[in-house]
Amino acid sequence: MKIRVVIPSITREFEALGLEQYSPCARPGTEISVTLLNSGPASIESRYDEAVAVPDIVSKVVAAEKDGVDAVIIDCMADPGLDAAREMVSIPVVGPAETAMHVASMLGHRFSVITILDQLAPLFDRHAAKMGVVERLASVRAVNIPVLELDDSERVVKALIEQSVKAVKEDGAHVIVFGCTGMIGLAGEVKKGLVEQGIVDVPVIDPGMLAVKVAEALADLGLSHSKRTYPTPPEKEIVGY
Amino acid sequence: MKIRVVIPSITREFEALGLEQYSPCARPGTEISVTLLNSGPASIESRYDEAVAVPDIVSKVVAAEKDGVDAVIIDCMADPGLDAAREMVSIPVVGPAETAMHVASMLGHRFSVITILDQLAPLFDRHAAKMGVVERLASVRAVNIPVLELDDSERVVKALIEQSVKAVKEDGAHVIVFGCTGMIGLAGEVKKGLVEQGIVDVPVIDPGMLAVKVAEALADLGLSHSKRTYPTPPEKEIVGY
Amino acid sequence: MKIRVVIPSITREFEALGLEQYSPCARPGTEISVTLLNSGPASIESRYDEAVAVPDIVSKVVAAEKDGVDAVIIDCMADPGLDAAREMVSIPVVGPAETAMHVASMLGHRFSVITILDQLAPLFDRHAAKMGVVERLASVRAVNIPVLELDDSERVVKALIEQSVKAVKEDGAHVIVFGCTGMIGLAGEVKKGLVEQGIVDVPVIDPGMLAVKVAEALADLGLSHSKRTYPTPPEKEIVGY
Amino acid sequence: MKIRVVIPSITREFEALGLEQYSPCARPGTEISVTLLNSGPASIESRYDEAVAVPDIVSKVVAAEKDGVDAVIIDCMADPGLDAAREMVSIPVVGPAETAMHVASMLGHRFSVITILDQLAPLFDRHAAKMGVVERLASVRAVNIPVLELDDSERVVKALIEQSVKAVKEDGAHVIVFGCTGMIGLAGEVKKGLVEQGIVDVPVIDPGMLAVKVAEALADLGLSHSKRTYPTPPEKEIVGY
Amino acid sequence: MKIRVVIPSITREFEALGLEQYSPCARPGTEISVTLLNSGPASIESRYDEAVAVPDIVSKVVAAEKDGVDAVIIDCMADPGLDAAREMVSIPVVGPAETAMHVASMLGHRFSVITILDQLAPLFDRHAAKMGVVERLASVRAVNIPVLELDDSERVVKALIEQSVKAVKEDGAHVIVFGCTGMIGLAGEVKKGLVEQGIVDVPVIDPGMLAVKVAEALADLGLSHSKRTYPTPPEKEIVGY
Amino acid sequence: MKIRVVIPSITREFEALGLEQYSPCARPGTEISVTLLNSGPASIESRYDEAVAVPDIVSKVVAAEKDGVDAVIIDCMADPGLDAAREMVSIPVVGPAETAMHVASMLGHRFSVITILDQLAPLFDRHAAKMGVVERLASVRAVNIPVLELDDSERVVKALIEQSVKAVKEDGAHVIVFGCTGMIGLAGEVKKGLVEQGIVDVPVIDPGMLAVKVAEALADLGLSHSKRTYPTPPEKEIVGY
Repeated sequence: MKIRVVIPSITREFEALGLEQYSPCARPGTEISVTLLNSGPASIESRYDEAVAVPDIVSKVVAAEKDGVDAVIIDCMADPGLDAAREMVSIPVVGPAETAMHVASMLGHRFSVITILDQLAPLFDRHAAKMGVVERLASVRAVNIPVLELDDSERVVKALIEQSVKAVKEDGAHVIVFGCTGMIGLAGEVKKGLVEQGIVDVPVIDPGMLAVKVAEALADLGLSHSKRTYPTPPEKEIVGY
Repeated sequence: MKIRVVIPSITREFEALGLEQYSPCARPGTEISVTLLNSGPASIESRYDEAVAVPDIVSKVVAAEKDGVDAVIIDCMADPGLDAAREMVSIPVVGPAETAMHVASMLGHRFSVITILDQLAPLFDRHAAKMGVVERLASVRAVNIPVLELDDSERVVKALIEQSVKAVKEDGAHVIVFGCTGMIGLAGEVKKGLVEQGIVDVPVIDPGMLAVKVAEALADLGLSHSKRTYPTPPEKEIVGY
Repeated sequence: MKIRVVIPSITREFEALGLEQYSPCARPGTEISVTLLNSGPASIESRYDEAVAVPDIVSKVVAAEKDGVDAVIIDCMADPGLDAAREMVSIPVVGPAETAMHVASMLGHRFSVITILDQLAPLFDRHAAKMGVVERLASVRAVNIPVLELDDSERVVKALIEQSVKAVKEDGAHVIVFGCTGMIGLAGEVKKGLVEQGIVDVPVIDPGMLAVKVAEALADLGLSHSKRTYPTPPEKEIVGY
Repeated sequence: MKIRVVIPSITREFEALGLEQYSPCARPGTEISVTLLNSGPASIESRYDEAVAVPDIVSKVVAAEKDGVDAVIIDCMADPGLDAAREMVSIPVVGPAETAMHVASMLGHRFSVITILDQLAPLFDRHAAKMGVVERLASVRAVNIPVLELDDSERVVKALIEQSVKAVKEDGAHVIVFGCTGMIGLAGEVKKGLVEQGIVDVPVIDPGMLAVKVAEALADLGLSHSKRTYPTPPEKEIVGY
Repeated sequence: MKIRVVIPSITREFEALGLEQYSPCARPGTEISVTLLNSGPASIESRYDEAVAVPDIVSKVVAAEKDGVDAVIIDCMADPGLDAAREMVSIPVVGPAETAMHVASMLGHRFSVITILDQLAPLFDRHAAKMGVVERLASVRAVNIPVLELDDSERVVKALIEQSVKAVKEDGAHVIVFGCTGMIGLAGEVKKGLVEQGIVDVPVIDPGMLAVKVAEALADLGLSHSKRTYPTPPEKEIVGY
Repeated sequence: MKIRVVIPSITREFEALGLEQYSPCARPGTEISVTLLNSGPASIESRYDEAVAVPDIVSKVVAAEKDGVDAVIIDCMADPGLDAAREMVSIPVVGPAETAMHVASMLGHRFSVITILDQLAPLFDRHAAKMGVVERLASVRAVNIPVLELDDSERVVKALIEQSVKAVKEDGAHVIVFGCTGMIGLAGEVKKGLVEQGIVDVPVIDPGMLAVKVAEALADLGLSHSKRTYPTPPEKEIVGY
């Protein structure tokens, strides 16, 4: 099986990094490939960043289908371009936020999202509302570290643990969901940090890794999004894309 | 007062047409200007069309603020780019769908949206859910006429009346909302058609015209969107925009 | 255009005061008139006060339509008599609470209402629920100053700023809505107070002033409430009114 | 135990009729008394009727408490004046609609309300929404017989059966609730009519009779409404009441 | 009238205790009988306890109907087996939690449940959601005393008062609901404790006592659950029950 | 990886059948084992059937954990015993209904469930409500074939296609979900039937097969339910289990 990860960024070093981070999630026989954007932002931290990333995200998803991959993951917790991309292809396109919020709702009573910046809280709240799981969202908290500084993983882990403990103790979270796919691979350490603080009973969801598993599951089953919800757009003149 | 209408289309003839359609809505002293996109689609009939329209919509809104206009209207019932544009400016940016759905909720118990194509129904349903007024949405119906054929206004009016009658009689609508800003100016005729069929008690909302009035009202009051909800994006490298 | 403000009070001095407060909101060409109640309470601070105000509110709205005014505003954040009045007339009847809550929902993620007395909080909560925007209501806070003491505007402004800051910092409000129309005209000072405390990004809605603008907008468009939602009552014997 | 039924009408013949209809519901030892309005409408079929009934309803509830009764029932499915009356007294005030909708939600999956006039449907919808049980409301149907013609009980029963059958078969109702207290005493015949048409499994709730039972239950337990929700109004000048 | 209380426990001393506690709630002429389980847990403090209690609860409800009782109460705030029991009988089966939450919603704006153990909070939250009253649930708090230690009523009352005060002051509760039927009979003392701390306006609901009154009311009216919601199960082979 | 399927039935022939049906879903390296109940019903078609199945379901899940399996699937769309079983073990316990409804919500706008019997519709409605996805549930339809006759797969497929077409055309479904795990393996034929009727754009979810994939995914990630939501029950005396 072939899975393509579309990283919605023009930052070159994310290509090797993404491959390194995503490959261990794949099961034997699943081949991960990674693609960056040619046009778009260095990182996504606002709806404007999202807006200028989406057109090339969609073209990368279209290219992935032409390349014969079995499923695509959009590597960002804003799920940028998810709807538009699904209109343009038939293969499954997996949004880490959509997936993680639904799975979190299955695993426990209430979940908290720990994201990068405070100002992104309304985004998650509305995303959860759109999906119908807003009653299950205990809180949105932030480590307040920008995407491009997430490579300092020690600092990130420490901040994630701190906010996760607060989410559990103050907000009533029963499940923790990372709020940025740039936090991929840190669930083990965060879980360990929670246990050290006596919180032994709270799962930690790494949306990037979960997206790989769900992509594999959908592809195995031959399931994809409904083209009745995401119909192929009518043909028309488009300038600049 | 100056109001800029951003038409999310590259179709040249929409410029004069838009000016002609929007100008009569303005009160004395309000000056309407219209701008098209340089890059983007001929019309918006899908989320993909929306995706390739948004980057230039945002740049047109930014330009409008620099030009000193008092408020901007994004001339499309998908409210494309509304969130991203609000992040980039401080002046009010009015989305016709958001405005029309809230005002419809004030005027009557349940409203129906009559849009262009059946496949756009989920869009309105989710838009209403995001705004919290989904319980007030009686139904979404379509005339099934593409945007670029809306200039045949006799056919459009006839179809609008037909669907509005069904919305009232079968779906329990108490208010009708046009589901495409390209239907601007037709509320009077549709209202008349309803009355001729014995439906004398149902208001018909023309979202484009309403958007002008709400833009005037917000600018009069010095009110705009919350920059806490729509914070200015962090500066970063962006390629291609 | 003529707009009639119905002040749901028998307190004589509110007549001149109301005219003085509302007139500056009107655009050139809009003429504001004000009417008090002949029977009813000195002020509205409970559902009982509301109950004894409503019959004469309705008769004042009916009289306004006979006088040829274009729209009516019921000058109270309980929107007393809004439904009954709409049944009796065809011209738009604007409720400041209904209007302010919908507009607040358009301008930001969550809003807080700062009202006069703590005990009115359930009223706003249920009002928001009835309108479908309860998820957007961050909190209801009170200055705990009765209506008849609102003329001490320095004290009121200070208390409004204090509660607004708490609403933003503790309750997550992105927009502030005044919870009593007696606070009309204070938005500028409250906004200034917020800015002085470093909160530069939160709009402050003055529901009385907003109601004037929305009344103008509806009258401009020839829009009014749905008579299907608010049908003319059947004729019958009524004693005492 | 003493229970007072406040009939929100000035129609004299309703007094003896009310006593005759309500008395059989009471258990041994419960004494029912009935009071009409001195000012107000002949019947309640609109929000305007409600508005002119409420002030005297409240004064009748206040008088009932002074008379030493244990609980009051407001004999109308609009629950007119329920909130205002609760502010003014400490004894339980029972609203037949509020009570019937909550009990219907306990007895089955979805309930339908069969009321007098089609135009009252939005009232029930919003009432159910305010109470939080709108998801349990399958439909609102009407017999389209005005209150003052409800004494033709044969016609009413026939229409109730007809609409109840439709509610069950077309709308998915599992429980039927009468939508006017003037239908009191007809549940047995309607139930019989349903059984004759093969619908043996649907309870029929008579809100007037249920209100008596709930009034007895609350009085037995010494339970009443929360004065934190319904605080005693501040004293003030009121003219005309 | 005969009411059977099914105590979902194998603990022998609960039989006499239950009879002693429930009998005073009954009105003259109502005869209370109590039955324990032959198989099941000593007490219900988890969903597992519930699972192993339900089969015998249902058989005890079936036996009650055969014994000619008029209504059954399942003496536990988890309402264990309520749905299954209703499928098997036609007489009313009253769940104290379902009943108390609906009545609390009628008496005040928001209610808090004070239960035995913190870990039961999600149960009440989901129960309220299933019933549609989750918006009315202010909070769930716990005394953290296991069921089998509830006989130390002084300790229990003290803890109930302490948590009720917090529910009112910190969580905005307007009504208190006991979260375990083992707290039966303590409402008077808790109410007194609240009054002593200045909280004079908050009703305290004792779900066990309320269940008796509601059982009497339903039996008086000949009302029971909808067999369309709770149809008699198809006959089939069952081993072990 | 080892996955245990617990079939909540005492019907012997389901053991071989279950193994035959579930094994093809597993990926290479996943070993499926199947276990029946020793006590319980022949099939689950009511809440009573569920009640008498749950105790032994839980003991089979506990046994599975002791046997060292990596995840358990409860093979029934009522998800019987899911909550209780999760309290007793740490390994993931997958409920096909919970899983299928969340995945359906990700794949399309609205889904319909096609179950066995009409009377089960309220079950799915409440299940969806408990999960927060009730707004995404377009309808519940039934083939009206009892579980024990599901082996006539030609008849079942025909009925599934017929009801799926109605769900799409009349109820607005964009995704179809089988409402009984006994329909496992039929998705391909139903999909083909839909295509033959011109419905090419609607995914068909087979909850049993999906459950295997989700079990594999959770086990791969080391994720399981939150023990804060499903804490280990306190130890106590239990008779009969």
